[in-house]
Amino acid sequence: MLFVISAPSGTGKTTIRREIERRCPSIRYSVSCTTRKPRTGEKDGVDYFFISREEFESRIAGGNFLEWASVFGNYYGTDRSYVEKLLGEGYDVILDIDVKGATQVRARKRDVVTIFILPPSMNVLKDRLAGRGTESEEALNRRLEEAKREILLAPWYDYVVVNDVLEEAVENILSIIRATKCRRENSRDVLNGFLKLLT
Amino acid sequence: MLFVISAPSGTGKTTIRREIERRCPSIRYSVSCTTRKPRTGEKDGVDYFFISREEFESRIAGGNFLEWASVFGNYYGTDRSYVEKLLGEGYDVILDIDVKGATQVRARKRDVVTIFILPPSMNVLKDRLAGRGTESEEALNRRLEEAKREILLAPWYDYVVVNDVLEEAVENILSIIRATKCRRENSRDVLNGFLKLLT
Repeated sequence: MLFVISAPSGTGKTTIRREIERRCPSIRYSVSCTTRKPRTGEKDGVDYFFISREEFESRIAGGNFLEWASVFGNYYGTDRSYVEKLLGEGYDVILDIDVKGATQVRARKRDVVTIFILPPSMNVLKDRLAGRGTESEEALNRRLEEAKREILLAPWYDYVVVNDVLEEAVENILSIIRATKCRRENSRDVLNGFLKLLT
Repeated sequence: MLFVISAPSGTGKTTIRREIERRCPSIRYSVSCTTRKPRTGEKDGVDYFFISREEFESRIAGGNFLEWASVFGNYYGTDRSYVEKLLGEGYDVILDIDVKGATQVRARKRDVVTIFILPPSMNVLKDRLAGRGTESEEALNRRLEEAKREILLAPWYDYVVVNDVLEEAVENILSIIRATKCRRENSRDVLNGFLKLLT
């Protein structure tokens, strides 16, 4: 099954991701493609698939992306056939993408399940963003405004998870994934097995 | 939140119930009302609420039951105000009722979430029913036919859980309950809190 998780900056998505990957080897976070240069320590196929502008644009033209965007002159996107391959191998796949990316995926994959991560409150979000201490006042405010814009779109998601206590948030996300697989419409094989015997 | 679990005879619902109650004190199985006499060891308010025919019929007339049925001359039913009281106290409430009862509850409570427990296969179901060894061939066949009729109605439920490995089935049910509480439409308070600050 395919899941989208969107989490504004400062809601703790990296920690959540690390915890989900540690606990559930049957869940895979999708690796995005990008045209930006690798930073020190970043590995191709792990942090991103690093590809050329030409390659990226030819994949856009071929309709090969589930979602893509151009940010500060670089492309970022999720390759459809890469995701299909993981799904085909039986993994549950999580796309860690923003609100605009989620909109594109919804249009292309009807059965995607979407999850929005909220901070416990706007004050906590501010503190978390400021706590990084690595950014100028201006950059911080830009992040905060961006987070506000995204939070206003949370009701477009199927599920809303508040990241107050990390362990609770992770448990809720894993529960959503488990529950989705038990939904009637995702249990056709099991049900059809009985139907064949009983009619 | 209110949940209905239906599980044909032989799918292990008593064991599942015991495990859920042990692990989650915030979840309460609803105690049914009945007009049948208590058996040895049965306690009023624990196994059933034992009430008189007159009382039961007056509650039917008053529309006080979320669901009720007459079985072998005795009434069984789920009292609406009792369930509302538990929900009001913040419990998640599970109604452990059959397919007909579930149909009645769906009509009366729009937001109920329904779960059907399946055996791993019809053969396992047969073995489990026979394994009790307490019943005549005829009684056993009656139970099996009844189970088949119920299983054919499984697709009317929101979720389907196969009880193959007990621990997995329990985990799936608990996940469905957790996930339901994260659904957008059940997160209005959280979302409205942000909306007030952001608009």
